[in-house]
Amino acid sequence: MNALQKLREKNISGKFICVGLDSDEDKIPPHLKDNDDPIFEFNKAIIKETKEYAAAYKLNFAFYEKNNLKGMESLIKTISIIPRDILLIADAKRGDIGNTSMMYAKAILEDLNFDSITVNPYMGRDSISPFIENPDKLIFILALTSNPGAADFEKLRLEDGTYVFQKVIEQVKRWNISDNCGIVFGATKSLELSENIDLFGSLPVLLPGIGAQGGSLEDVVFTFKQKKRKDFLINVSRGIIYKSSNKDFAKAAGEEIIRLNNEIKYLFND
Amino acid sequence: MNALQKLREKNISGKFICVGLDSDEDKIPPHLKDNDDPIFEFNKAIIKETKEYAAAYKLNFAFYEKNNLKGMESLIKTISIIPRDILLIADAKRGDIGNTSMMYAKAILEDLNFDSITVNPYMGRDSISPFIENPDKLIFILALTSNPGAADFEKLRLEDGTYVFQKVIEQVKRWNISDNCGIVFGATKSLELSENIDLFGSLPVLLPGIGAQGGSLEDVVFTFKQKKRKDFLINVSRGIIYKSSNKDFAKAAGEEIIRLNNEIKYLFND
Repeated sequence: MNALQKLREKNISGKFICVGLDSDEDKIPPHLKDNDDPIFEFNKAIIKETKEYAAAYKLNFAFYEKNNLKGMESLIKTISIIPRDILLIADAKRGDIGNTSMMYAKAILEDLNFDSITVNPYMGRDSISPFIENPDKLIFILALTSNPGAADFEKLRLEDGTYVFQKVIEQVKRWNISDNCGIVFGATKSLELSENIDLFGSLPVLLPGIGAQGGSLEDVVFTFKQKKRKDFLINVSRGIIYKSSNKDFAKAAGEEIIRLNNEIKYLFND
Repeated sequence: MNALQKLREKNISGKFICVGLDSDEDKIPPHLKDNDDPIFEFNKAIIKETKEYAAAYKLNFAFYEKNNLKGMESLIKTISIIPRDILLIADAKRGDIGNTSMMYAKAILEDLNFDSITVNPYMGRDSISPFIENPDKLIFILALTSNPGAADFEKLRLEDGTYVFQKVIEQVKRWNISDNCGIVFGATKSLELSENIDLFGSLPVLLPGIGAQGGSLEDVVFTFKQKKRKDFLINVSRGIIYKSSNKDFAKAAGEEIIRLNNEIKYLFND
């Protein structure tokens, strides 16, 4: 099963939530800190309680690289316990000249065997080509991000009246000859999603910005439902993994993803 | 001495070459491969022969992350032997939403104690803010890169007639309140540099693209000389570190940087 098939299988069974493992030693429950590898213990407990309900897991590399070698060990151990029928996304936002991107692609998609990675489009086609060589992976290219700074460059208006992020989406559709490209599209502003969804074509969409960043789950689901369109993932990080800061954190995370799945099911059938 | 001062000290003494340690196990001389850490042995020899002549060292993270934990060990050991009066640049091209960029900044600028890092501007101000908090560091923001893909988005023309990369440069000047921002500007096409140098203001410039990528050292030096402008670094990676593929590789690297320094000196005095 390739990466896109994994996403579709989950979507078909009503699973759209990507659990963002933005696991931070300063935020995990205090009782875990006596372990040799508190971040791994935290992830292990979260994965155990959420794996039945998750459409994907996303590991934000900064949270692991922050701890240097120890962090990379936590990351590698975490990868090893995620069931391989669930899409595994490296949120690394890489991108460099061709021969350098090739090394990032090898490290993350081959050696660490992620199904998927987020990449930054700024440097253009040859910075992305090495990532999209393998048709079995799924490469999410940043289009419109969920942060305030999205206004600085992504939303600059071009001479033809379109925006930079729209030009990125157009190019990604051209590069998608192996059906292995997707886009990241921030869900903080509902109108932006509804105004641009027709431009996406059939590209899978990873949507950050729900929850702590202010986006509305209802609006996202409504927009995709209206277009009779699946192939999307709603990322929730803090809203799930830090639902409780007590010993019941993992159970609380499991309950929260069940609640979100039920809400999505209700919205789709509404 | 902060990062900008390190750069200026070297420029004053006629040093403008940044040695790019793009050290690749497939390209280093075969006799090194019997070592426990061939990449570190290679870097150690290169540094020994070039440190008197280098203005900066740039470690391209992809080349180290490619080897996962072992690669990070080579990187950490390499950092430890670079003299601290020489600017040490992490070529990592990071950039993410604010709270995530903060972690990359901590890992690379604090824990690994790099003087400098390359960052990607696509996600805008809050993706860059955490990197520019420390006035003693020097943050090189990608403006125009040296690869063919630069044409895809960096060179899109905006509604006011300027290009995306020019808007990035304008913003970086605004963000540069602590005198710790610089730009990456590809030197592959001489005309682009001469046409844009006035826009740079006083921003330090890191110029990739000389040598293997086709840019002209003479044109770069001539353009800066004409403007009576220093605060720049010309990156050379493959042209120095792989000057010879035999046992004399380190000596050849040392000779090559001396030759480049002499050429620059000649061009400045011409």
